[in-house]
Amino acid sequence: MEQIAERVKASPRGVRILSDYLAILGFLKKENESYSLTADAALFLSKHSRAYMGTIAEFLANERHYENFRKLTEAVRRGGTAGEKGHNMAPDDELWVKFARSMAPLTIPATLFIAQLEGAAEGRPWRVLDIAAGHGMYGITIAQQNPQAHITAVDWPAVLEVARENAEKAGVASRYETRPGSAFEADLGDGYDLVLLTNIFYHFDKPTCVRLMQRVHQALKPTGKAITLEFVPDEDRISPPTAAGFSLLMLAGTDAGDAYTFSEYDGMFQNAGFGRTTFHPIPEMPQQLLVSEKTG
Amino acid sequence: MEQIAERVKASPRGVRILSDYLAILGFLKKENESYSLTADAALFLSKHSRAYMGTIAEFLANERHYENFRKLTEAVRRGGTAGEKGHNMAPDDELWVKFARSMAPLTIPATLFIAQLEGAAEGRPWRVLDIAAGHGMYGITIAQQNPQAHITAVDWPAVLEVARENAEKAGVASRYETRPGSAFEADLGDGYDLVLLTNIFYHFDKPTCVRLMQRVHQALKPTGKAITLEFVPDEDRISPPTAAGFSLLMLAGTDAGDAYTFSEYDGMFQNAGFGRTTFHPIPEMPQQLLVSEKTG
Repeated sequence: MEQIAERVKASPRGVRILSDYLAILGFLKKENESYSLTADAALFLSKHSRAYMGTIAEFLANERHYENFRKLTEAVRRGGTAGEKGHNMAPDDELWVKFARSMAPLTIPATLFIAQLEGAAEGRPWRVLDIAAGHGMYGITIAQQNPQAHITAVDWPAVLEVARENAEKAGVASRYETRPGSAFEADLGDGYDLVLLTNIFYHFDKPTCVRLMQRVHQALKPTGKAITLEFVPDEDRISPPTAAGFSLLMLAGTDAGDAYTFSEYDGMFQNAGFGRTTFHPIPEMPQQLLVSEKTG
Repeated sequence: MEQIAERVKASPRGVRILSDYLAILGFLKKENESYSLTADAALFLSKHSRAYMGTIAEFLANERHYENFRKLTEAVRRGGTAGEKGHNMAPDDELWVKFARSMAPLTIPATLFIAQLEGAAEGRPWRVLDIAAGHGMYGITIAQQNPQAHITAVDWPAVLEVARENAEKAGVASRYETRPGSAFEADLGDGYDLVLLTNIFYHFDKPTCVRLMQRVHQALKPTGKAITLEFVPDEDRISPPTAAGFSLLMLAGTDAGDAYTFSEYDGMFQNAGFGRTTFHPIPEMPQQLLVSEKTG
């Protein structure tokens, strides 16, 4: 413990109390007054591990979320965030760069699930549009799994820089194209086989979701599909807990966002012109996947 | 839900999302789009219930605690709070009035345990000193259980007003005396059978604890006992979780406070002149009780 304190330039007392607390939480193992990483901590919380996911704290524990929850009472009164109106749609918001730089580790189970569900490994020539791509990992993983896939990513310019870096690291940069701008205004192109809509609808009210999905409909080729990754609670809106509880985060932080149920999504997507939508829970993840066919 | 929204003058959307979240947490039951209190919520969280304990949020969720934890990294470096030095010993700190006004409901299991352990119901003429009495409920409960008990409460003047109100409500005001001032400086009197030290030592370093206990030793009569209610972790300092984890709260919020182990308390109390100290876990509560005999 004295060694740790010296190493991190902190007081032995502070390090002792913090280390004990981390042991209580299960991140450290304490034996004979010495501390070591537990297996999970070594895998996911050591910066030396390739599976390091500590970056997600930079987004999930961002001060803005605290601010929003400090004003939760006011948000309940208003029915929307008590923070700045429309702040989560502002161009080039620094928060989305932070999102892109920090949240990639959480995507792995869902990206692989999507790639497998759509049969990426079969290697058909795909044109994939990744809307509000962020770190880009959803599209990039498909490009890795399908060497015949070409990805077009849409997001704010500063965010797309992160996606491009990630595409380069993943060795798929030659099949990676970017279109800077808002998903509601940018020229999306057309003739896509797949459009990825990951963690985007929950920020908006229903008319806005429909408007976005109409643009997606236009961008798809007739046999194309829209792939939506979202927190989709059951119709009772109180289960499963994480998906249902996500509503509160959207009440606190957005003007009119929500965790919509399957029937709500199905209705919105039909209004936007889509045919059949199917529901796919992702194992071990709080999110669910919706696959919508352009023509039913 | 529309009815609730109208009643509390909030948006139906905000009320729907908040109510669903409370249902997810188990505070509400949701059936056919209508909400009702669960049994626990009706008992402990309705202001119409005599067992209402919602007041504790005013202390436990106080902004000052958030402030302290926002500066936790700095506290670990320093080995003590990154807030104002010594702030938790300032005379007439408004926070302790808030404590006195809000935290009484949490005391019930421990107060009854103490009264029973010491045989209050036997009705011997007791003189009881309640140090840093706060709401006064520890002494007041003993006065209720033992009609021959006379209580002397020490705390800051504004805090003692709350204790006095509670003594009046409990019908023991005629046997309730107050001595305003710091536990370290006020004239405590002497010849006490019992001295109550509830939730006080954890705020201080060991020399300060010894100094306080020396004053307690002087105030007791030869057959008297000191009763200490504290978070006392096992010698490993990482179990049980709540008692052990309390250290972090003290690191974040005090200059040098801690959750001391039994051997540490026993050592400090011996240094202050006490004989045998015995350890008593309180069922269903995170705190533990230490009973120390003035003469071993």
